[in-house]
Parts: sequence; structure tokens; C-alpha cells
Amino acid sequence: MVRPSENGPWLGESGQDSDVVVSTRVRLARNIDGVPFVNKATDADRNEIVGMVRRTPLFAADAGELDWVEVDELDGCDRRKLVERHLISRQFADSEASRGVGISRDESLSVMVNEEDHLRIQTLGTGLMLHEAHDRIATINRELESHLDFAFNPRWGFLTACPTNVGCGVRFSVMLHLPGLRITEELDRVRRAAKDLNLAVRGFHGEGSESTGDFFQISNQVTLGVSEQDLLETFAGDIVPRLVDYERSARQLLLDKRIRNLEDRVHRAHGILASARMLEANETINLLSRVRLGVSLGILKTPSVREVHRLLLHVQPAHVSAITNAPLEDNEASRVARAGMVRGIFGG
Amino acid sequence: MVRPSENGPWLGESGQDSDVVVSTRVRLARNIDGVPFVNKATDADRNEIVGMVRRTPLFAADAGELDWVEVDELDGCDRRKLVERHLISRQFADSEASRGVGISRDESLSVMVNEEDHLRIQTLGTGLMLHEAHDRIATINRELESHLDFAFNPRWGFLTACPTNVGCGVRFSVMLHLPGLRITEELDRVRRAAKDLNLAVRGFHGEGSESTGDFFQISNQVTLGVSEQDLLETFAGDIVPRLVDYERSARQLLLDKRIRNLEDRVHRAHGILASARMLEANETINLLSRVRLGVSLGILKTPSVREVHRLLLHVQPAHVSAITNAPLEDNEASRVARAGMVRGIFGG
Repeated sequence: MVRPSENGPWLGESGQDSDVVVSTRVRLARNIDGVPFVNKATDADRNEIVGMVRRTPLFAADAGELDWVEVDELDGCDRRKLVERHLISRQFADSEASRGVGISRDESLSVMVNEEDHLRIQTLGTGLMLHEAHDRIATINRELESHLDFAFNPRWGFLTACPTNVGCGVRFSVMLHLPGLRITEELDRVRRAAKDLNLAVRGFHGEGSESTGDFFQISNQVTLGVSEQDLLETFAGDIVPRLVDYERSARQLLLDKRIRNLEDRVHRAHGILASARMLEANETINLLSRVRLGVSLGILKTPSVREVHRLLLHVQPAHVSAITNAPLEDNEASRVARAGMVRGIFGG
Repeated sequence: MVRPSENGPWLGESGQDSDVVVSTRVRLARNIDGVPFVNKATDADRNEIVGMVRRTPLFAADAGELDWVEVDELDGCDRRKLVERHLISRQFADSEASRGVGISRDESLSVMVNEEDHLRIQTLGTGLMLHEAHDRIATINRELESHLDFAFNPRWGFLTACPTNVGCGVRFSVMLHLPGLRITEELDRVRRAAKDLNLAVRGFHGEGSESTGDFFQISNQVTLGVSEQDLLETFAGDIVPRLVDYERSARQLLLDKRIRNLEDRVHRAHGILASARMLEANETINLLSRVRLGVSLGILKTPSVREVHRLLLHVQPAHVSAITNAPLEDNEASRVARAGMVRGIFGG
């Protein structure tokens, strides 16, 4: 199921606006009518939910799109790997009781069962592809709806455990790479604007994480009283393009006015990655972020964006542990293993 | 006179204990009897001193060891270059009125005239060579004494402008490279011990300079009431060997207990020097210091110690300016020029 040596679909080679937009994610929150929300559910309720979901054709042993992963059967490293691959949430990995996730072979589709809601359906892709991701998730939703009865109130919309998801229950999100805005010190303006627009700004590792390497997940926060289509149009047609333009302007400014400084940052990052003998995960992501900027702007010829993306995934603790047999915790052995992996790509 | 593309004699390839001792310097302070000290001297007095010194055979046009450099005739960059090459002091470069310096072709011998004292005679060499440097300066001193009448008091010894030099007027000093003691955080103990032993600890650039790149100039402070021979025996036979052993023990500890950390420091420094597009002088010296440690311990195969020493000299502002035509001040152009020079050696 978990193939640590491969890229996830959110870290592919290219895609629309991929100089700034790393990946796109759309997820739906759904609950089954007549069964208590997960936080109120008994073990029997939870097992019933799992059973109902797994009996849908999506999970059919022969032709189903999804393979079932029983999270409780995974060790700590495998759970963490799924988190690093953005297939399950951190909370879901660490919680207890009956739960699982269905994952498609290419990892572009996943369905968490018994997370905060009964179902969390997610599609993931490279670059900016909100419409495609939304089309796909709508198809999956219809398929599930034909077998499951989702809790729905004509006035409020889909009912969810957290009020912010009540309504259409959709979250559109993009992972943006904003090093230009970081260097030109305009991120605070972006954060303020995002707040005014009811957008959530999260870090590389999702909810509650600090931003690392200038990667930011931007998503809508509220779905109540707004149609899915309106949300999509605003997010895909207005908000994301504006952020992309803003980042591109910052990069152009750096190219025009501070090219030496920019080259220095990029080449130093490359030099450190090519030579370090110990690397901590967050430092590595910060350095890879600078290299990604350099590749995007043509300052660096190698590595490819695909290799940078592969490393962004593989330098995370559980992946380092799975690939190199280093321990999962952050210590000298894991840092040495990470640095070795990185030098393999950077040729140091 | 000033050959910026060459190493100075204090930055040669090797020498005794050169893993720790970069260079040796011995200097004598002397004043001519019957002429006021420099701080009391009139222009006529100063000119008279210059004339008396330049009439000694050391300065003879055909066979003299020393070439005369009239400091006032040098531009700011050339003066600074002499400071960076440890041939004149910073104060001497910046002061006014008649003064000059005699410099031997290999720069191992120099005589400043009208610095704080009428004569400051200096011999410089690579590695630990206090006895040889002292033998040479004693010879030069005798030669000068046979033509000049030095101010001497039977009770106090040689008379000098500053009381710390009264007596035999000699200063023995070594430039030590102490990265092991820095990393193991034992430098404070060294400083305290040095203070107890009446030693002065100065930085890479001499009096008043901060220590850069873990380079420290250690020298005796007091010469009153001590014979030159006793000073030499204590300094060369006891103090310096103890410091050298102390540094070597620290390095061995790092090799035994923290080898990964050490390798990481060294390789990162190499990686940054090979890739940076802008380098400030002190950062460069700090990085070269780590590389020197790596070369000494066999962690790095290249560059050679000689190349590291050459760069330690050439990355300083006036040398960068002279070699690359970059401006003398620290700005983008000089940083870019310095980084280019460094990459030329580090092959980035």
C-alpha cells in the first residue's frame, strides 16, 4: 500500500502554474444519516460505519478503486508515512478505535473512515487543478451517495461534526510555494488578506504546523451558506490566480533588483545539500525550497523539479526511516541517513 | 613591493606543529638615544630618524636586505594590503607625518620606522619557529646596533614609548588555529590561563580585532625584568607546546566522540565556499577555518593547506580589491568578487 520510494500525486513533475502551485487538494466531509457522529459513536457504531463504507463498490476486492488500510494494524512508522504522504491526518494516525482509510493505487484518491466525520473523501493532484479535482470528487461522492444515506438538512446542507464544515462540506486547498513573498517580506500582507477572505493558511504539514520552506496550504474555511460551485469559482478563478501573480511579481522584483542575492541564496542552499553530513528534516525542506525557487527561475539546471519534489517527500522522518532503516526519531543516525539520501541526488 | 598574488611568509605551506601553529612572529621595540619618542617628536626629529635608519647597510640600494616603502605615498588600498600582510600595524597605516617601513623581498623581515617607537623590527615565519625567528631578529638587531645608538638604561633595559615594552623590548607571538577548543567550548579556559600567564590574546587582525575563524595571536605582554632568553624559553618551551597539546586533545575528542558533527561542519563549510555567489570577508575566514581543520584532520583531501592559507590572505578586503579591481569597501561588488575568487579554488 505505502510505497515510500515513489512520489505522491501531489508531488508530480509539473502541472498548471506549477512554478507556484505545488499541489491541489479537494476534500468532502460526509456523515451517514442515523449513526451518531464519530465523537459520540460507540465501538459498535464505528464498526458499523466501516462496514457500510467497505461494502460500497469503491472497495470491491476485484474492481474497486480503493484498497482498505486498517490504521490500527500499522506500526508508528507506517502511520506517519501516510501522514507525510497527505493521505491521512495526524489526528487520525494517532487516535484510537476502529478506523481506516481507502487509498487508490496512485494515491490521488483517499477516503478516511471515522476521522472527525464518518467520511473524509479527498482527491490530490499536482499543480493547479481545482476543477479536475472537484469533478473527480463529485463523481466519487455520487457513487457513494447511491449506496449510503448522507446526513443532510434542507436548510443547513450536509451535517458535519464541526460547524465550519456544515453546508456543502467541501474544502478546496492548494499548496503554494511562496519564497518570493518571504524574501520580499510580504507574507504578512498575504496572511492578513487571507484572513479577510476567510481563508485558512497552514504549513507544509497541514493543520497546526508551522510553515516550512515557504510552503503554505491555502484553503477555504467556511462552507455554510455558500454553494460548492461559487466556492470553486471564487477560489480557482480569483483567489489562487491573485496569489500566484503576487508571488510571481515578487520573484520578478528579486530578479530585477536583487539577482546577486537571489543567486547566492539558491547556490548556497544547493551547496549545503550537496555537502552536509547531517540534515534535520525542516532545515532540509527549507533548503529544498530555495533550490525549487532556483530551478523555477532557471538559476539552477539540476536537479529537476521532480527530484526536488521527490526529496520533499522522502526527507520526512518516516520516509527516511522506511528507506534507510534509520530510526524514526530525530537523532544523529536519522540526520546522517537523510544527508546521505540528499547527497545521492545533489551529487556531493 | 606589495605582491598581492603571493602568500606572505606567515602563510606558507607547513612548518613545525603547523596543524595548530599558523605562524610565528618576533618583534623588537627600539628607540634612538637622544631623539624624542615619536609621540613627542617634531617633524624634523621624525625625518632625522628616518634618515638615520635608512643610512644603515640594511637599506643599502645594492646589497641591503630591505626595500623602503614611504607609507604616505601609498594609497588607502596599498596601505591596507600591508596591514593584511602583517607588515605594518593598522595604527601605522592610518597615522600621519613622516614614517615608512623597510620590507625584505620575501616579507619575512620588516622594520617600521616612526610607529609607536622609532623602530619596530619584525621577523615572520610559517609554523612554530620561535628560536629561528629570534636568532634572525637578534642578528638584525646587532647589525642595527652597530650603526645606531639605542636608548638603554642599565637598570630598566631598552627604553620604549609604552611601559609594557620597556626591558628587553621583545614580543614573541604565534598565530594559533584553535577550532577544536572553540567547538568544545574551552576557549574561555584558555583565555583565563593566558591572562594568568600575562599573555595577550588577539584576533586574526591583530591588536583590537575580534577573533575570526578561530585564529588567535598569543604573545607575551611584559618584558620588564625578564631576560629575552627566559621569555623565549618559557614561551617556546612551555606555553606554546601546552596550547598546541590542548588544541590537539580537543580535536582528538571531536574525532572520537563527535566525528559526524565534525564532518558535517567541515563539509558544509566546503560546500558553501564552493557555491556562494557573495561572501563577506569575516564569514569567508570562518569558513576557511573549518576547511583548514578538515584538511588537518584528513577529512578533506582538497584544497591544500597552502591554498587555504593563500585564500586567508587574499580574501581580505584590500587583496580582493587589488586582485579583482573590486572596490575596497564591503559591498555587493566586493562580495561577488570575493566569492568568485574562492570558487576558483573550491571548484564550484
